[in-house]
Amino acid sequence: MSASRQHIDTLILPRWLIPVAPSGAVLEGHALAVDGGRILAVLPAAEAGERFTARETIELPRQALIPGLINAHTHAAMNLMRGLADDLPLMQWLQEHIWPAEGRFVSEGFCADGVQLATAEMLRGGTTCFNDMYFFPDVTAATTARIGMRAAIGMILIDFPTPWASTTEEYLAKGQQVRDAYRDHPLISTNFAPHAPYTVSDEPLRAVRTRADEMDLRVHMHVHETAFEVEQAEQNDGRRPLARLADLGLVTPNLLAVHMTQLTDAEIADCARAGVHVLHSPESNLKLASGLCPVAKLLDAGVNVALGTDGAASNNDLDMIGEMRTAALIGKLAAGDAAALPAATVLQMATLNGARALGLDADTGSLEPGKWADCTAIDLDTPETRPLYDPVAQIVYSSDRRQVTDTWVAGKRLLRDRQLTTIDLDDTLARVDHWQTLLRT
Amino acid sequence: MSASRQHIDTLILPRWLIPVAPSGAVLEGHALAVDGGRILAVLPAAEAGERFTARETIELPRQALIPGLINAHTHAAMNLMRGLADDLPLMQWLQEHIWPAEGRFVSEGFCADGVQLATAEMLRGGTTCFNDMYFFPDVTAATTARIGMRAAIGMILIDFPTPWASTTEEYLAKGQQVRDAYRDHPLISTNFAPHAPYTVSDEPLRAVRTRADEMDLRVHMHVHETAFEVEQAEQNDGRRPLARLADLGLVTPNLLAVHMTQLTDAEIADCARAGVHVLHSPESNLKLASGLCPVAKLLDAGVNVALGTDGAASNNDLDMIGEMRTAALIGKLAAGDAAALPAATVLQMATLNGARALGLDADTGSLEPGKWADCTAIDLDTPETRPLYDPVAQIVYSSDRRQVTDTWVAGKRLLRDRQLTTIDLDDTLARVDHWQTLLRT
Repeated sequence: MSASRQHIDTLILPRWLIPVAPSGAVLEGHALAVDGGRILAVLPAAEAGERFTARETIELPRQALIPGLINAHTHAAMNLMRGLADDLPLMQWLQEHIWPAEGRFVSEGFCADGVQLATAEMLRGGTTCFNDMYFFPDVTAATTARIGMRAAIGMILIDFPTPWASTTEEYLAKGQQVRDAYRDHPLISTNFAPHAPYTVSDEPLRAVRTRADEMDLRVHMHVHETAFEVEQAEQNDGRRPLARLADLGLVTPNLLAVHMTQLTDAEIADCARAGVHVLHSPESNLKLASGLCPVAKLLDAGVNVALGTDGAASNNDLDMIGEMRTAALIGKLAAGDAAALPAATVLQMATLNGARALGLDADTGSLEPGKWADCTAIDLDTPETRPLYDPVAQIVYSSDRRQVTDTWVAGKRLLRDRQLTTIDLDDTLARVDHWQTLLRT
Repeated sequence: MSASRQHIDTLILPRWLIPVAPSGAVLEGHALAVDGGRILAVLPAAEAGERFTARETIELPRQALIPGLINAHTHAAMNLMRGLADDLPLMQWLQEHIWPAEGRFVSEGFCADGVQLATAEMLRGGTTCFNDMYFFPDVTAATTARIGMRAAIGMILIDFPTPWASTTEEYLAKGQQVRDAYRDHPLISTNFAPHAPYTVSDEPLRAVRTRADEMDLRVHMHVHETAFEVEQAEQNDGRRPLARLADLGLVTPNLLAVHMTQLTDAEIADCARAGVHVLHSPESNLKLASGLCPVAKLLDAGVNVALGTDGAASNNDLDMIGEMRTAALIGKLAAGDAAALPAATVLQMATLNGARALGLDADTGSLEPGKWADCTAIDLDTPETRPLYDPVAQIVYSSDRRQVTDTWVAGKRLLRDRQLTTIDLDDTLARVDHWQTLLRT
């Protein structure tokens, strides 16, 4: 019999296998078969033993195996600004602290080191893919690809000059270079990332719209983050920002609208009709007192809602397990219903919905044959997660990211028994020290 | 010179010493001198070397030392019901799941094992003291005293019979026995714990009031947890529950009012005038969609607000570091102000304000000479807490409870380098398995 068994790379045998698709499924006694970086099968462990001979068999008797978490909105390099300015409202935080610091310090080196710290933090917390918006996207892409993590890299665009680019033309041209360099890369995809309606004017947004339509690329943008933003726009422009974006032809299935704390029922219906994706960042919205995104209403209307941490300067972590918990808790408050945003829904927001938003759901976001083996093992056999009646609820409501033991991207084990395999942590932290000293001055 | 040095038990030398009193202080190069279980001095390390010879010197070069966290509202034994029923509103959760399970299973053994798990979780998360409301308070007190942790034990009272007691007289008599057994105990204090206005009628509340006044004891009670509770009371009784409690003479500096998500400005002013303490449990309020406690308004009015996790069945953890983060984030939302509930305020809510609420602030809640050495060391030298600009913000916004390395209660090191010294974890988890099997049926 064994002669007929198929030789494969890896067989993972977790205590619980939570594929996310189908939604809510929790498999016991199952295996994940991986070959060539992709998932070959999800099947009963006994059957796996009959069908496959694996070069490596990994037993995870304490762990749940879930799809790798997808951080659908972040600014990875800003990890170097974690805790630089807390307990401040959005515009004061941006104008008096973040933008001045960025003007002084942001550079290739800053971004390389910040992204290295951010990817270390994300992999240690079970995140396998992130959607980034920041300066020097070339550096973010190169650093992430070198480390072996998956990312969607935003071609950033903003109306004022920064160390990355000075004019709309320069922003767009440099963005296009990043896209060209990573076309067909197995880990790196790209999208347009105009910062926000209040920082990007009509002309550059028209250019983004034309190019995004041509290339069928996503447009990743902060939209309706605060009541102030919406009020200012109404005063200055006579329209709410979403209406202006619609007039510009940007409210399409390619729009990744981040935050969306200020939404009328009509706008929710419009977003559903248009196929807009909403990227929800609850901790950032709370920390900056921006407001509550009506997630349950959006989901009920059929809008795809994914989850992201935002940058570490306004969160102050890139912890997707913590973000799931906050999303579940705050989603119930926003809905006025304790049954809203149950644990399985929130886990899907943090995985498959993120992949859908990024247009990557053929490749990642669930544990299904054919997709890349992007997955995360979480130790549920701790005093903090005992007793255990429902592993999904336990992950969302009781687990900490430090229970993540292993993280794989495209079948490569980037975190092994809590040790990073492609990032030198001592080197990373020495670089962080350097920037901390500079930024403190 | 050394001949004149005072012999003491312990000298702790953390990287940062955060005494909480004075508020916001962060000391570097300082030592905590401990003798006979109490804090002798907080002083520069160099001076400590000249003044003291310690039997044990503990260097904590990566850690911040803070007062032990005080979980001002919990139901410790309910740890055995963690995750038993999630994503449900309060009354359905209580009536269809929690109360039936309690009726079937709650016993001396259940409470002993549940409290053992809860104290393990709390000590591992930096909590040194908790305020408990549950059946078999005698068991909770005995278990906690044996483990060496500090607790305020509620003499529970509810209008219906439970495995603990059947009548008001029996509840009160058995409560009094607990009080008598622990009077003058260095770790255990007691208070009255009538469950809630909607579960305890006037007659027993009058008995509580008389006794609490006589003995000058706190009265720990769920109050204005949900809008439903307040509406029902107004319909049935013509008064809001707080008004009824005021008419019964219970709105005094001894009242520990838990939750308080439904408050008018007049009620806030009344609570301030009366000296009521508010015990805030943000995660439970969110998870049950109960509402938002107006913490910033309460603090501005001069009300003492402490922080608690509630029981693990509605949270689903006893994680005070996570609870601080949620309190800070949600406090900004409730206030509509990102500057509300800054990190230092929230740390004080989780320590000194808890001690004040419990009437224990002469003994614990801050690192000041004369108080018991109840303290917690948190490792801030992790990738997730780097860079570090402000240790207090880093603890509240970026740290996980698993960064807690050591916890002391009355100078005794109950958690040493992440290992519990007075709890057998294997034994605890074996007992948890037993209950999990029973409760699942």
